Amino acid sequence: MADISPFSHQFREAMAHLCAAVSIVTSNGRAGKVGITVSSVCSVTDTPPTLLFCVNQNSPLHDIIQQNGKVCINVLNPQHEELAKHFAGMLDSTMAERFKWDIWQESDNRQPVLKQAVSALQGEIIDCRTIGTHSVFFVELTDIQVKTDDALVYFARQFKPLPL
Amino acid sequence: MADISPFSHQFREAMAHLCAAVSIVTSNGRAGKVGITVSSVCSVTDTPPTLLFCVNQNSPLHDIIQQNGKVCINVLNPQHEELAKHFAGMLDSTMAERFKWDIWQESDNRQPVLKQAVSALQGEIIDCRTIGTHSVFFVELTDIQVKTDDALVYFARQFKPLPL
Repeated sequence: MADISPFSHQFREAMAHLCAAVSIVTSNGRAGKVGITVSSVCSVTDTPPTLLFCVNQNSPLHDIIQQNGKVCINVLNPQHEELAKHFAGMLDSTMAERFKWDIWQESDNRQPVLKQAVSALQGEIIDCRTIGTHSVFFVELTDIQVKTDDALVYFARQFKPLPL
Repeated sequence: MADISPFSHQFREAMAHLCAAVSIVTSNGRAGKVGITVSSVCSVTDTPPTLLFCVNQNSPLHDIIQQNGKVCINVLNPQHEELAKHFAGMLDSTMAERFKWDIWQESDNRQPVLKQAVSALQGEIIDCRTIGTHSVFFVELTDIQVKTDDALVYFARQFKPLPL
């Protein structure tokens, strides 16, 4: 653990106790078809409808998402816990396998939309800000599908259901 | 509601169902002493420990926070629901009154720290990115205090407790 300062360790503890909704960000385009579980989706403004999410630059998916320039942010419900683990790379599956499961549909602009997502938020990456190890992607939305459903939350390093 | 497009309305519905931890961002300095309830705090990177939060530019607190350049992000527990409403301007209290309550201590660099916060995260604003109506403030942390406690969450336009 020589690369983690005590201050970074404290930061990780604090962030572990900052609960957050869990989403799978998917992206399809010339650079490939990928998905990644994130707990860093955040609303920015409704004029125009824009949100952001953060991805580690060391992730092999980072550049693919950036090059495709389009994403779908699929907000998860508690039934998606295992799926979240798959797309976080915590279980034994390949990217190709995950997209073969009958839970996806392809949108008009070819983005993978999770059929049972609480929200499926498609949009274009309008900006990317690099800070330290991570990039913050700003996404202006072009299509919004929303349900009313319980939430899947990540809190204290565990997935938890949050009822409506 | 002429200023809200159907698409913006849909966006607000989707964001209402994107649950998030609730924090009070406080700031003290030459521009004044203020605090505001936000549900837009998001971890960015631990190298160096950095997070972000979003504030509407129409808020009179926006410029004060920006001018002070320093903040404390106080992550709330379920006992802080009424406090969150005060700092969201939902209850009848002035900023001066809220800071008189015996729940605050002043840090070495004069930031208001909520004694019982789950985390009290002090730092300096290193960048500000304006998108539409809102600004995204990037904060590099200089001091971190963290407890292990239940979380206060905002979900479906309600405050809710999230047990550990």
